[in-house]
Amino acid sequence: MKLHGYYRSSASYRVRIALNLKQLHADTAYVHLSRNGGEQFTPTFSSLNPQHLLPVLEDGGAVLTQSLAIIEYLDETQAGQKLLPADALGRARVRQLAMVCACDIHPLNNLRVLNYLTGPLALSQEQKNAWYQHWTHLGLAALEAQLASGAHTGMFCHGDTPTLADCCLVPQVYNARRFQCDLALYPTILRIVAHCEALPAFQHAHPDAQPDAE
Amino acid sequence: MKLHGYYRSSASYRVRIALNLKQLHADTAYVHLSRNGGEQFTPTFSSLNPQHLLPVLEDGGAVLTQSLAIIEYLDETQAGQKLLPADALGRARVRQLAMVCACDIHPLNNLRVLNYLTGPLALSQEQKNAWYQHWTHLGLAALEAQLASGAHTGMFCHGDTPTLADCCLVPQVYNARRFQCDLALYPTILRIVAHCEALPAFQHAHPDAQPDAE
Repeated sequence: MKLHGYYRSSASYRVRIALNLKQLHADTAYVHLSRNGGEQFTPTFSSLNPQHLLPVLEDGGAVLTQSLAIIEYLDETQAGQKLLPADALGRARVRQLAMVCACDIHPLNNLRVLNYLTGPLALSQEQKNAWYQHWTHLGLAALEAQLASGAHTGMFCHGDTPTLADCCLVPQVYNARRFQCDLALYPTILRIVAHCEALPAFQHAHPDAQPDAE
Repeated sequence: MKLHGYYRSSASYRVRIALNLKQLHADTAYVHLSRNGGEQFTPTFSSLNPQHLLPVLEDGGAVLTQSLAIIEYLDETQAGQKLLPADALGRARVRQLAMVCACDIHPLNNLRVLNYLTGPLALSQEQKNAWYQHWTHLGLAALEAQLASGAHTGMFCHGDTPTLADCCLVPQVYNARRFQCDLALYPTILRIVAHCEALPAFQHAHPDAQPDAE
């Protein structure tokens, strides 16, 4: 397997965590999102993913995109710790928690969107940061409510082993810290993230631990 | 089962299509997204979904949110036509196509985001429309490339029966048309959507066919 990623791409970070949790090895191809106008726009990468987005996982002849689809694929085809629960309601809950990050926070705050705010829309850094914090807080507040009241919340988002939901939550919190979001309002999230960050699988997936970190 | 939805919510529209394809009945609760300051903010609805987003599916005592998680849950627990393929690579491809809409187009263009653009950011209608069209075209162009070149593309996004990917594509195209996006660049998408629109399951899920349509 080969993972095309970038140290600070949080969708790549999700897949790195999943690979580590399942104790799988993937070679890495580094795609720098801003150098040379963005290496995601080279003809070679564009032929792999016409969306010009990371990550991409190559597995044999197959080319997979979209981090959540990749993680579900790994969970279905590879041995190791399961990242989705065995019961349908549990799977629905884990996917739902993952999608709060993957559908409702991250897409609004990734690099291409921030570049549009400060480029074509000519907004100020202050407006950009307010935008970032607005969507982060809306999403994390909802997650906090769901996790704090959820009967299935355990040491991790769902029970006492990490799942797809934790693979998404940890990169989201990493991003929120980079953008100075005040996380004190989210004690359940902070407790879960602390449990995650104590595990080598999460530590080794951290952006700062990647060979392409700057 | 009870579906909390709104005729023009495209995430609700996705679930309506899935229910119809699987020939399932759900009672409907109508949540008007702009009347009375938005009925998604009432205490009753907020207790169901602290994200204040549609749809919500109640099944027995369970409360499910996030349209893609709901559709996967229905597919796993209910009889009827399968909306995810039987093979892992096929499932990955269908999820990936669905997530281009659900993660990379729709979250940037839904009502709360457009309201932020014209409210706090005080952008013009022209800037809002340019934003809308920008993200729609980026996503649809990538989808067109993936669908036009995909060996598994058939009458529908994946093979010759509708899947989760078609449940997402049709509402996205409905939205694109509402916002006057030129779709002539996407012949494969238009061909697939025409096949979908010929089916009663899609026709009966259309916003205009809902009792709460205005």
